Amino acid sequence: MSTYAEMDKAALEQEYAKVKEQYEGYKALNLKLNMARGKPSSMQLDVSGDILTVLSKNEDCYDAEGTDVRNYGGLDGIPECKKLFADLLGVKPSEIFIGGSSSLTIMYDVIAKAYTNGLKDSEKPWAKLDKVKFLCPAPGYDRHFRITESFGAELITIPMLDDGPDMDMIEDLVKDPTVKGIWCVPKYSNPDGITYSDKVVDRFANLKPAAKDFIIMWDNAYCVHEFKGEFVPFRNILEECAKAGRPDMVFEFCSTSKITFPGAGVSAMAASEANIEYMKKLLAVQMISEDKVNQLRHVRFFKDRDGLLAHMKKHAAILGPKFDVVLDYLDAEIKPLEIATWKKPTGGYFISLDTNDFCAKRTLELAKEAGVTMTNAGATYPYGKDPRDRNIRIAPSYPPMDELKKAVEVFGVCLKLAALEKYLEK
Amino acid sequence: MSTYAEMDKAALEQEYAKVKEQYEGYKALNLKLNMARGKPSSMQLDVSGDILTVLSKNEDCYDAEGTDVRNYGGLDGIPECKKLFADLLGVKPSEIFIGGSSSLTIMYDVIAKAYTNGLKDSEKPWAKLDKVKFLCPAPGYDRHFRITESFGAELITIPMLDDGPDMDMIEDLVKDPTVKGIWCVPKYSNPDGITYSDKVVDRFANLKPAAKDFIIMWDNAYCVHEFKGEFVPFRNILEECAKAGRPDMVFEFCSTSKITFPGAGVSAMAASEANIEYMKKLLAVQMISEDKVNQLRHVRFFKDRDGLLAHMKKHAAILGPKFDVVLDYLDAEIKPLEIATWKKPTGGYFISLDTNDFCAKRTLELAKEAGVTMTNAGATYPYGKDPRDRNIRIAPSYPPMDELKKAVEVFGVCLKLAALEKYLEK
Repeated sequence: MSTYAEMDKAALEQEYAKVKEQYEGYKALNLKLNMARGKPSSMQLDVSGDILTVLSKNEDCYDAEGTDVRNYGGLDGIPECKKLFADLLGVKPSEIFIGGSSSLTIMYDVIAKAYTNGLKDSEKPWAKLDKVKFLCPAPGYDRHFRITESFGAELITIPMLDDGPDMDMIEDLVKDPTVKGIWCVPKYSNPDGITYSDKVVDRFANLKPAAKDFIIMWDNAYCVHEFKGEFVPFRNILEECAKAGRPDMVFEFCSTSKITFPGAGVSAMAASEANIEYMKKLLAVQMISEDKVNQLRHVRFFKDRDGLLAHMKKHAAILGPKFDVVLDYLDAEIKPLEIATWKKPTGGYFISLDTNDFCAKRTLELAKEAGVTMTNAGATYPYGKDPRDRNIRIAPSYPPMDELKKAVEVFGVCLKLAALEKYLEK
Repeated sequence: MSTYAEMDKAALEQEYAKVKEQYEGYKALNLKLNMARGKPSSMQLDVSGDILTVLSKNEDCYDAEGTDVRNYGGLDGIPECKKLFADLLGVKPSEIFIGGSSSLTIMYDVIAKAYTNGLKDSEKPWAKLDKVKFLCPAPGYDRHFRITESFGAELITIPMLDDGPDMDMIEDLVKDPTVKGIWCVPKYSNPDGITYSDKVVDRFANLKPAAKDFIIMWDNAYCVHEFKGEFVPFRNILEECAKAGRPDMVFEFCSTSKITFPGAGVSAMAASEANIEYMKKLLAVQMISEDKVNQLRHVRFFKDRDGLLAHMKKHAAILGPKFDVVLDYLDAEIKPLEIATWKKPTGGYFISLDTNDFCAKRTLELAKEAGVTMTNAGATYPYGKDPRDRNIRIAPSYPPMDELKKAVEVFGVCLKLAALEKYLEK
């Protein structure tokens, strides 16, 4: 089999006619398939079903200290829930703040407070500054970028390398005092599925930013989300930053959104005790306490870190085969054509694929017309603008297996068609 | 029995000796009683126990439209939950946004967005303005005042009259374009327990503020919280504002915090469709969706508005007698002395008592020393400063009946002692 690049015009035209026919065939099926967002499937949700009744009587609703979790109070969470997340992240319970059902909301809160009140080490609220720049390793998570964008920060794209973001560039950029922070997904990054190397984590901890209130937004969303193989330990960024003399430079985040129920889980923030104290004062203005009943539900359901890791195996058993379907298809059908490259993650929720330059938008447009919804092209870049229009985020988790297989086939045909259109200048 | 004002010095000294002895007697008991915050008692929480298992299987977790409430999505809430709150407030489901477990947080969000992004009709974000003033009817709710204070607004105290805030003053103040809004608790106000008269609601709806983006923060926290008698209907402020030609001037709030579980209920915001659309765009940056499992739990538990109103009768049966204990004691022991006045609410969570001038702080200091914790003096005023140091907020809901009886006796003795100290200039 030749690659498309090697084909002459006649061969390309022939291939185009064939692929076009396949495409029209799929279109005629009036499919309605979705690989847009990293949503767990209902099979995955079902594995957490018992959490619904783990607290079933009024008498169940008391935490380890005898506090009635049904009532007001306990801004930072119940002790056993703090311990669970502390064990998960390898930090101290005193370094944990338990949030509501979404870690995105606590991330937003940290940035929002930076703007309206200033962080612990800010000279003034960021809203009072003429310029705030924020570093965005890309491809990355669109919702991260949008948070800082919504406050008017200037987003600076940092290329993602194989072991994490381009640290040379970051070390250089943080010399600028208007550079106030960076978004990171250190394990199974969204969408690349890359885990930052120890060396990269080290360089993060040893950053010497000009801005005293520079923050690393360390979104450890996929910290236990292996879908292949055993749990892979990760470094404690809080400890590394402390060792390097800047304990307050990092905020870490995680949640049970992709462990129990995405809409109804528990989130957590980890930070130095000084940062937690500071943030608690600000957060106390907006709430009395988060949902402690749900916190206790989660602790009773998992029991402890080991229980949670065992639970993740159930997700892996469902997720792993779905990733295989996509990767096997790409290897068999696309690789020989040399019209795209992709990463092969062993955890997380995405496959990140790069088309030939300037083919991503067209590929997804074709997919949409054939009834396959995927994340918008460009979404993985700041301002939604992928400079070479080539990154596509594939989310295989949500569709049932049969739909996924069909969706990947359609997507593959769209990839081919978009590439062919480019070669043939159609 | 003479009032203290009528007593001569010798009589006052005699009374002082007697009351002081009673006080020392209570102190010796090493009590630990709490009438500080409006927390439901565990007896009240128990009446909602069945909500824990109303969703008990995976199959239960689908809403009226067949959406899996366990998964991501549905920023503004599930349809049946919007309908429940719409029925409660007399508005349309399209005018409802369902929040997380705390209405305080949505209120904070509205003010925060005003500062960081501007409201729908703002010329610029409030953070960019030199001056923002906010009206605070007082005595009022300390957490309201603190939200606007935390953003640097200047708080202006509006006296509370018997039928609501002083509308003459408000109508005058809103001519100032830097006056951007007002906090209101229209039914069973915190702490006075006053329900705004129709005339007052009308005048609110017909305000003509100079600021185009002036907002009425209408916290209908106690909209169904009668503890005596039948449910009292209230006017639909959204409709009244619309009739008066300013449909976007009001945001209304409520929650099930004091209906099911204070830490784990569901909150709601009601506003014009245009306001809801605008706020949804901003809120989409910070969250994908709130806890829809808990939303569905609440709908299944109450079934509908009638079910919710019937449920409130169970709270009333527990709360009513507690208010009687306090009010009966005050009538019997304090009223004849003419050292305090108070309101007699039929709903809500508080009794608001005014001591003689400059006696509130001392009364609560004495109570604290005798082991009775109450809301800090001044808390019901902006900046925590009660100009005449006389307002005390009594929260009878939380302690069990026997503790409440004891707490009220101690409080009464402290009231007397503080008044006597003043008369005797001790």
